[in-house]
Amino acid sequence: MLEVAVIGCGMTPFGEHYGKSLRNLVEDAYLSTIRSVDKGIDPKDIQAVWYGTLASSWASFPIPDFVGLSQLPVSRLENACATGSDAFRNACFSVMAGIYDVVLVIGAEKMNDEPCSSLWNYQAMENWNIGRSMPGVFALRATRHMHEFGTKREQLAMVSVKNHHNGALNPRAHFRFETTVEKALKSRMIAYPLGLLDCCPMTDGAAAAIICRADIAKKYTDASVQVVGLGLATDTSYGTMTDEQLVGFPTTTKAAKEAFQMAKLEPKDVDVVELHDCFTITELVSYEDLGFCKKGEGGKFVEEGRASLGGETPVNPSGGLLAKGHPTGATGVAQIVEVFEQVRGQSGKRQVADAEIGLTHNLGVAPEGSVGLVTILRRGT
Amino acid sequence: MLEVAVIGCGMTPFGEHYGKSLRNLVEDAYLSTIRSVDKGIDPKDIQAVWYGTLASSWASFPIPDFVGLSQLPVSRLENACATGSDAFRNACFSVMAGIYDVVLVIGAEKMNDEPCSSLWNYQAMENWNIGRSMPGVFALRATRHMHEFGTKREQLAMVSVKNHHNGALNPRAHFRFETTVEKALKSRMIAYPLGLLDCCPMTDGAAAAIICRADIAKKYTDASVQVVGLGLATDTSYGTMTDEQLVGFPTTTKAAKEAFQMAKLEPKDVDVVELHDCFTITELVSYEDLGFCKKGEGGKFVEEGRASLGGETPVNPSGGLLAKGHPTGATGVAQIVEVFEQVRGQSGKRQVADAEIGLTHNLGVAPEGSVGLVTILRRGT
Repeated sequence: MLEVAVIGCGMTPFGEHYGKSLRNLVEDAYLSTIRSVDKGIDPKDIQAVWYGTLASSWASFPIPDFVGLSQLPVSRLENACATGSDAFRNACFSVMAGIYDVVLVIGAEKMNDEPCSSLWNYQAMENWNIGRSMPGVFALRATRHMHEFGTKREQLAMVSVKNHHNGALNPRAHFRFETTVEKALKSRMIAYPLGLLDCCPMTDGAAAAIICRADIAKKYTDASVQVVGLGLATDTSYGTMTDEQLVGFPTTTKAAKEAFQMAKLEPKDVDVVELHDCFTITELVSYEDLGFCKKGEGGKFVEEGRASLGGETPVNPSGGLLAKGHPTGATGVAQIVEVFEQVRGQSGKRQVADAEIGLTHNLGVAPEGSVGLVTILRRGT
Repeated sequence: MLEVAVIGCGMTPFGEHYGKSLRNLVEDAYLSTIRSVDKGIDPKDIQAVWYGTLASSWASFPIPDFVGLSQLPVSRLENACATGSDAFRNACFSVMAGIYDVVLVIGAEKMNDEPCSSLWNYQAMENWNIGRSMPGVFALRATRHMHEFGTKREQLAMVSVKNHHNGALNPRAHFRFETTVEKALKSRMIAYPLGLLDCCPMTDGAAAAIICRADIAKKYTDASVQVVGLGLATDTSYGTMTDEQLVGFPTTTKAAKEAFQMAKLEPKDVDVVELHDCFTITELVSYEDLGFCKKGEGGKFVEEGRASLGGETPVNPSGGLLAKGHPTGATGVAQIVEVFEQVRGQSGKRQVADAEIGLTHNLGVAPEGSVGLVTILRRGT
């Protein structure tokens, strides 16, 4: 297997982009990515494209053309909310195989506009007409976690407070306001115990990364970031979740195990984490599933500040899905963007001191089951 | 790059499957694939799944569970009508990279049922309300080819006659009737010069293949089939097609060039071809674009019987999309199934004598542009 490095990353600001087309968002993410390559890159060096979008398009073959890379091969990946991460994973495989030297990954989604919004509604009507909306599916896990381990709503609120604090420091975050435990607890109830501030917003945005063979990365930058671990797992639940599925995501655990094995690293080695906090409970159980604390101790983990900026394992310095936003196809790629910048020391006020090893975790959940995807990146040598 | 081999292939009969769910089709294709492995395979050897579907699902994580491979990683690929071929391509990359030893590719589509049929209609209303339906988009190319090169409607009809002849020999084909040039010319006009018998049907079905590292293929079969070439290209046209785009598909030419280079082979080396004949004109121009004859000579190529069973380069012995059918996500994988069986001498009455090297060609077209994908397979040594 050839070693693979990320040499450039970029993204649009996340938010509501009614004034921009999907094409505009893709263009903006691409341009910021090209500009991020320290020694510059001739776009002609890019040989293939992977495109992650959940619902914003079918035919993806205009994507290379949107960014001036006419006639390049492009593959669209879709893997529920983990879409962007899987586009990144498949792009890595093509370089690891020696097929291409330099490839581009783009993730993009317009959640708030046609045709995506219609399709969301379509799905919602088909599957979720018996209370199994997204907040409902996660609320079930929250109440079970509270029942099993004594987790408190205050601890869920602390996840929201932490991520909104970080998001307020991130110029590209959808929400840039601080909140408090009290405000989070009093926010409008969506699905008990999840209030409005426990839920991520509907966000538009795009993100991109350029991946190349590690042995040619120096041509583009002296600060490349190596891709050292990749893991993906699925499971199913339908209407009958196991105890394990009620208090966490076994797919996260399995994907993390694979990624750590491939990287020859352990959770304690990780300096910075971007994880899938679609709801506060998701972040809390993911501390456990990823191995940063024991099952049931997620509430304590956030309460003790261990996931905060300055803590032992800062989680979601970008603001996470809760504050930065969650444009499905873009989310996984945006997590790569944040870790890329963190391990290169480019994250400004939200910089994690001396971060060398970063982990991204993405998750897709539907009533039928879930998918978990973990990536481990390491500052290049 | 590690060498990659196909060790098993299977598919459902193609047709209208109102009585079967998408899950049933996936199960049937999987079981026939497992059973096709000469020395047997423990399903636990399969480490990951690639799933190709254009419109029949979002969340693909139940797919491994459908076939008893719970918790395996699965990635959904979508690339317009070339979806199944690109799922195969990405699966190959993961094995070439050394990430997995044995992986499964499944392509499936229910074209005639919900939710797929609604989505087709949705797309049709959005994009094709000014005559740019699929038949319309291809009819434009047919009239131009007739104008430029003197191609005749009779020659288009000969493609239909040939492929329906082959389809009648294929127990898994959607249509199993012979036709004549006269009948094809008199069939109901859809978009001039394309009559009903120039058009492929709306078909349901699934197909699958098992890919492994070539160096362990002997564990499973003494007759594995090597993947020696892969090429993918895109282009765009919007409302302004170039002369080249009007009389063919530059994406086919580019993808074929890449695949032939990787395989170190030339068009004259190919013994059997499965190509994308969504309409008769598509097959005719693809002879030219793939390099089996010169540009403009496609009509003569079919008229002289050079693409027939027994001809110099038999094309679509399965019946192709015109007779076997075109369940979008399954089509590319089903082309692999046919070539796999042909080079192993398992194709019964439609066997191409002593076929050793086979090529599959898939194409995706929308008003915005096109995607071409070529795969070259070779009987294992």
